[in-house]
Order: sequence, then C-alpha cells, then structure tokens
Amino acid sequence: MVKVLAINAGSSTLKWKLFEMPAEQVIAHGMIDRLGLADSVFTAKYGDGQVFKLTRDIKTHDLAATLLLEQLKDLGIIDHFEDIVGIGHRVVAGGEQFKDSVIITEETLSQIEDLAQYAPLHNPTQAYYIRVFQRLLPRVLQVAVFDTSLFAAMPKENFLYSIPYEYYEKYGARKYGAHGTSHRYVSARAAEILNRPLADLKLITLHLGSGASITAFNHGQAVDTSMGFTPLAGITMGTRSGDIDASLVAFLAEKKGATMAEMVDILNHKSGLLGLSELSPDQRDLEKAAPTNPLAKQALDIFVNRVVKYVGSYVATMNGLDALVFTAGSGENGIDLRQNIADQLAYFGVQVDPELNHVRGKEQIISPANAAVTSLVVPTNEELMIVRDIMRLGHRDPALQA
Amino acid sequence: MVKVLAINAGSSTLKWKLFEMPAEQVIAHGMIDRLGLADSVFTAKYGDGQVFKLTRDIKTHDLAATLLLEQLKDLGIIDHFEDIVGIGHRVVAGGEQFKDSVIITEETLSQIEDLAQYAPLHNPTQAYYIRVFQRLLPRVLQVAVFDTSLFAAMPKENFLYSIPYEYYEKYGARKYGAHGTSHRYVSARAAEILNRPLADLKLITLHLGSGASITAFNHGQAVDTSMGFTPLAGITMGTRSGDIDASLVAFLAEKKGATMAEMVDILNHKSGLLGLSELSPDQRDLEKAAPTNPLAKQALDIFVNRVVKYVGSYVATMNGLDALVFTAGSGENGIDLRQNIADQLAYFGVQVDPELNHVRGKEQIISPANAAVTSLVVPTNEELMIVRDIMRLGHRDPALQA
Repeated sequence: MVKVLAINAGSSTLKWKLFEMPAEQVIAHGMIDRLGLADSVFTAKYGDGQVFKLTRDIKTHDLAATLLLEQLKDLGIIDHFEDIVGIGHRVVAGGEQFKDSVIITEETLSQIEDLAQYAPLHNPTQAYYIRVFQRLLPRVLQVAVFDTSLFAAMPKENFLYSIPYEYYEKYGARKYGAHGTSHRYVSARAAEILNRPLADLKLITLHLGSGASITAFNHGQAVDTSMGFTPLAGITMGTRSGDIDASLVAFLAEKKGATMAEMVDILNHKSGLLGLSELSPDQRDLEKAAPTNPLAKQALDIFVNRVVKYVGSYVATMNGLDALVFTAGSGENGIDLRQNIADQLAYFGVQVDPELNHVRGKEQIISPANAAVTSLVVPTNEELMIVRDIMRLGHRDPALQA
Repeated sequence: MVKVLAINAGSSTLKWKLFEMPAEQVIAHGMIDRLGLADSVFTAKYGDGQVFKLTRDIKTHDLAATLLLEQLKDLGIIDHFEDIVGIGHRVVAGGEQFKDSVIITEETLSQIEDLAQYAPLHNPTQAYYIRVFQRLLPRVLQVAVFDTSLFAAMPKENFLYSIPYEYYEKYGARKYGAHGTSHRYVSARAAEILNRPLADLKLITLHLGSGASITAFNHGQAVDTSMGFTPLAGITMGTRSGDIDASLVAFLAEKKGATMAEMVDILNHKSGLLGLSELSPDQRDLEKAAPTNPLAKQALDIFVNRVVKYVGSYVATMNGLDALVFTAGSGENGIDLRQNIADQLAYFGVQVDPELNHVRGKEQIISPANAAVTSLVVPTNEELMIVRDIMRLGHRDPALQA
C-alpha cells in the first residue's frame, strides 16, 4: 500500500484527500478555509470518525502546504513526509494541449502557468502549490489533472464559436468546458454499472451542483458539453447565468453604467437561481419556498427547462440516448428535480421509477427495467479520479509499487 | 378591390410592395436603396414584367415616401394617392405590450417610439415613416406589424434569462425573438398545407436566411425561439455569431483593446459563416468552395450543427415533433442543407426524399409519405402577412370594403 494525496486548491481554500492505493481507501481528508485571511481554519477527518480542527492565521500557500504535512504527521496519519509518494492536483485550465492528465515536469508546469489567462483565479495558485510541494517533497511524483482535458479533443464543430476563425488561432477562443474530472468519473462508473463498454453507449452526464454542466458521450468520447470558454456558459447554475445574449450584457452594462468586468461578475455571482429567485442559489431552499414563492418556483422551472433543452440538443447530435447520469449536489440528492427532468424527457424514453428514484447520494439505477433510457445516480468522486490518474501515469515509478 | 401597401423600412433602404386585396395580388413592388446617400436608387417592378429604375439623391425619409407615391402615380400603377387605403409597416421592436399587430393611433405610435431602446437602428426610422405617411395620406389606415409580437406571450421559463429578476422588471431584459412575421406566415401556411389546425401540431419553423432563427410552435402558440434579447443570439448566421459565452466576449475585448460596442459590432457583422469561413456569409458561396476549402466546409458543418441542436432542444421541450418547415433564402433553396439537417435529425423521424427535396423556392412537402415527421418547404411572405393584418385589423374601415 502507498499513500497519495489529492489537492484541490482555490484562491482561498485548499481541499485535500489522502488515499491508500491501490485499495482506493480514503484515510484522511479535510480542508483549509479562509486561507490568506485572519483566523484560517484547518480541518482534518480521519481514523474512525476523528475530527481535528485548528484556527490560526495561514497567510500564505507555503504555510498552508507545510501545515498540512505537519498536521498529517502530528495526527499520526503519516509517519514521515516521505510516506506520501504521489500528489495529484486539480488544475482548472488545460487549454488545448492537455488532452489527458500529465506528470509534472518543468515543461508541463510552465505550460500550466502559461495557461493562466484562461483561469486567472485558479491556474497561478494551482501551479504555485505544485512548486511548493516540489520544495517540500522533492522526490514525490506530482500529477496535474485538468478540468478541461476531457473536452480538448471534442469535434471542432462543437467547440468552435461562430466568430472570426482567427480568434481561435490567435487567442484560443473555443469551448473548453469544465467539470471534466467529474464527467469522466461518472461516465466510466455508469458504464461499469451498466456492464457495457463506454464506447458502446450514447450517454449524457448531468453534473448538477452549484456549478452545473452537461456532457454528451458518444463512442467513448466526450463530444459536447454545456460550459463554454469559461464555466459561465451553459445551463442555469446557483449564481451563474449560463447562456445569455451577448447584446443583452452590453445593453445592461450601459443601463447600469457598469463595466464589462462588473457585468461578468454579476453574471457569475449574482445570477442563476439566486438572481431569478431573489432568495437563494440553493435548490433545497427554493424547493422549500416554492409552494408559496412564485419566483422560487419559477427559478426551479427555468433550471429544469435549460437542462431539458441541453439534453434534447445532445440527443439530436448523437442521434439517440442510452443512459442519463445524475451527479453532484442536486443531481445526487434532488429527488423531485430528477423526477421533473425525467418527466419532461419522456419523449426520448427517459423514465424514472419513483421508488428507485427515492435515493440520495448513492449509486443507483433509478429507471424501471423496461425504460428505453437507463437513468442512474452516480455520486461524483473527483479526488478518486485524481489519485487513479497518479497511479495510471506513475505506473513506472518504483515508489508507487509498494 | 382595394390597394394596400406593405412598407419595410431600414436605415438606408425602403422596401415596398403594393397589393390588391382581398385578392392578395401583388401589383407592384420595389425598393429604394442607398437612402440618405448620394445616387440613391429607386426601383419598381410592375405590370407584366416592367422594371423602372431611377437614380437620384434621396437624402431624407420624407423625400423617399413622397417619391414612392409620385412614382406609383407617374407609372400609372395608381390614379390618385388616395387609391391606397391601407399601409402596413414592419416594426422591429414591439416589446412586451404588442402581442399582435396594431392599428396606428397617436398612443400606439408613441409607444413604438418609446421602444427605440430595444431597436435603436430601426424603430425610430419605422415610426418616422408612419408619421410621414400620416402627413402625405391623412386618412389612410396604418398598421404596425412587429417582428416580436409572435413571441411576446411565450412561457416565461422560455423568455427569461437566468439573471437578476429585477433586470426583467426594470429594463425589460428578456428574449424578444425576431422574424416573427415570417415564422407566423409559414407556420400558418404549413398547417393549411397539412390540412390540420396549427393548434394540433408540434411544429418547428426554420427561417434560414442571412439572419436565421428557429421557432417552436405547440398548441398553436410560439413557445420558444432561438433569437434572444436581440437578433444576435441563437444559431450561426451569415455574419452573426449566434450564442456565445459572454465571458469570451469580455476576454476578446481585452485582448483586442476593443470596447464592448465594438465587440458587439464584430459579433453582428464579422462573425457567423463569414467569420468562420474567412470567405463569405453566403451558403451558396461556401457550398461551391467547400470541396477544396476546409474552412468553408467547417462553417457549413457548424451551421448545420447549431440548427440540429436547437431542433433537438425544442423537440425535448415540446415532447415531440409533427412537422419541420424550411423557409427564407437557404431554407427555401438549400437542397444540400436541408438534406444534411434532415439526415442528422433521423432519430426524431425526420427524413427527406431526395427527389421531393430537389426544389427551390416553392411550396412542397419534401418528406416521404411514411415519414414520422413531415418536412416542408414554405417560401416566406412577410409582406403578405402585413397586408393580411391590415385587412384583419381594418375590417371595420369602410375604405377597405371596396
């Protein structure tokens, strides 16, 4: 058994999960919150239900990484730093060049840094953590796992926008998608559950969390996805608008005397379910409020409407549908949501059995046995995908063979 | 028989068509081009193939309207100005209040002027022409026919964007659609051809011209349409981008040092098929070039891809499809285009018969008799719809009863 670590670094959080491989067993996980602010909070859950919590100013990413390793040792989860033989990092933007996860070298790391323009809030931080761990654990194998790599090889007619072609060549203006690690995990898992090769399935995966996206898989490949150049596009999300007429954004900017950057911020953080409902970005809050709150009801209806339209568009381009996979917060737990989506997709043979569908957060086929389309709940597990990628890419590394 | 005039005024053109009603017979039609510029060109076609052409500076809309009436008289098409008993105007923006065409009164005319913010290049000019004809023909019945009225009553979950709800209430931020007069005409005509009430049909109309839009009809109502707050959104068009991630627009503006207005201009005039192909906005040019020009081929593929996705999304929300109607330039004449679209929609039961489909610009059912979905070509006729609206709304006007 070897220990490998999955790191998901945001600008003010660091989520981590430590696995024992190849058993795929989580031995500890936690996060650092309010990173860079006063009173940062370090949390670890491990053993048989132990929880450790520490409040302390953690002003830098260097301190955060050091603290994580030291706490793992202090809590007896590892004996030496060197027990960790692989670290996998979520990286948001992989551009066109990273069609798969990749072992960190000086070259791949500087490519990740060069992609900062496509994810200015994420890639620089994520690259920085890779460098920090290079210093702290000089011999450890590090791997970058990109949100976008699943989509890098989509057919060109699905990833190009209808804008001057030179913008694609010069500026990389294309659909990159996001949530790729999640869609990759649940598509593979769904194929296993259905006991059919993914390559034989026309599959649509619905990652319905506070960020939400829909991916179409055909012939074993992701062929289209709802997020765009950035994670702003696609379906309605918790606080993000999804698709919108670009002219309307310009019109609103003028009406409000706002800059384009301010408008993009509104579209990312004050729109979606929150903006529509004037109440909450959270489906659960809206479901509670809906019976007496028309805006909450309407926000939920619009969410379902957008999901249904994207599914329809992908059924059209794939010329069929074998299975529909629900994942992420609302996808895994939204019983009514799944029922509503399935009801509106009845024409395509989508159907859920109310009893089977009465499930939260666990793998389950929720369609009746005779349904033309199999619907499933598959809880996502991006960290597991990350550590699997460490093992797959690092199979020649003797340290991973223990 | 009475004579009524359909007017379609743009910023630098005025298209007109004179009908004899109720026979619905076109007795003359033509346009004024380069209006406001030097060497404006007035053209009239009438009688049995006569063409009259006049080049002259026409600097103002007042002069254009006067010239039109005088030439109609000089050419012997009318005897007196007063022979014209009704004038119908295409008006681009009808906002939410105009759910149907409307007789011009001082009140409706000032409402049209107030809607200028939604169509700054069109509504002011169109309202101005109404005032000019009020002066020239004080007793004539005038009617406004809106591009948007077909869509004003769509279900809210289809016309709202997922942005703060107050933007809808304060600024009218919603999907208004466009090409409504065309979609209205061809949907009604398709129902006649199929000899079924429109209310019984799940119908999708494809207006595929240099501007292009797709509308879904269910229970006799337009329930969704691909154009948005403005005619920029939706599918790929001749020079318009259709849907795009708003963040990408902001990203490109920064890269190019362009203002948002400049970006919207690029998205309207340098994008779409033209931008993708770097060759032409015209499908015919691209079809000719495609065998040896990969960008031209790709632009056509992307166009079909977007049409197919929108159709799929509407099949999903309507839970079915009875008929698919092709209209406008490429819809009426694009034999290969229709074949390609139908082939990719085979899963929904769309099918065209190559022989029946070998038709340009005339009404024809192009699907085989046993196809699950009936596909039709219906040449659009917005002017006929306009003059029908004059007769319908003016049925109490004695001057229209002749």
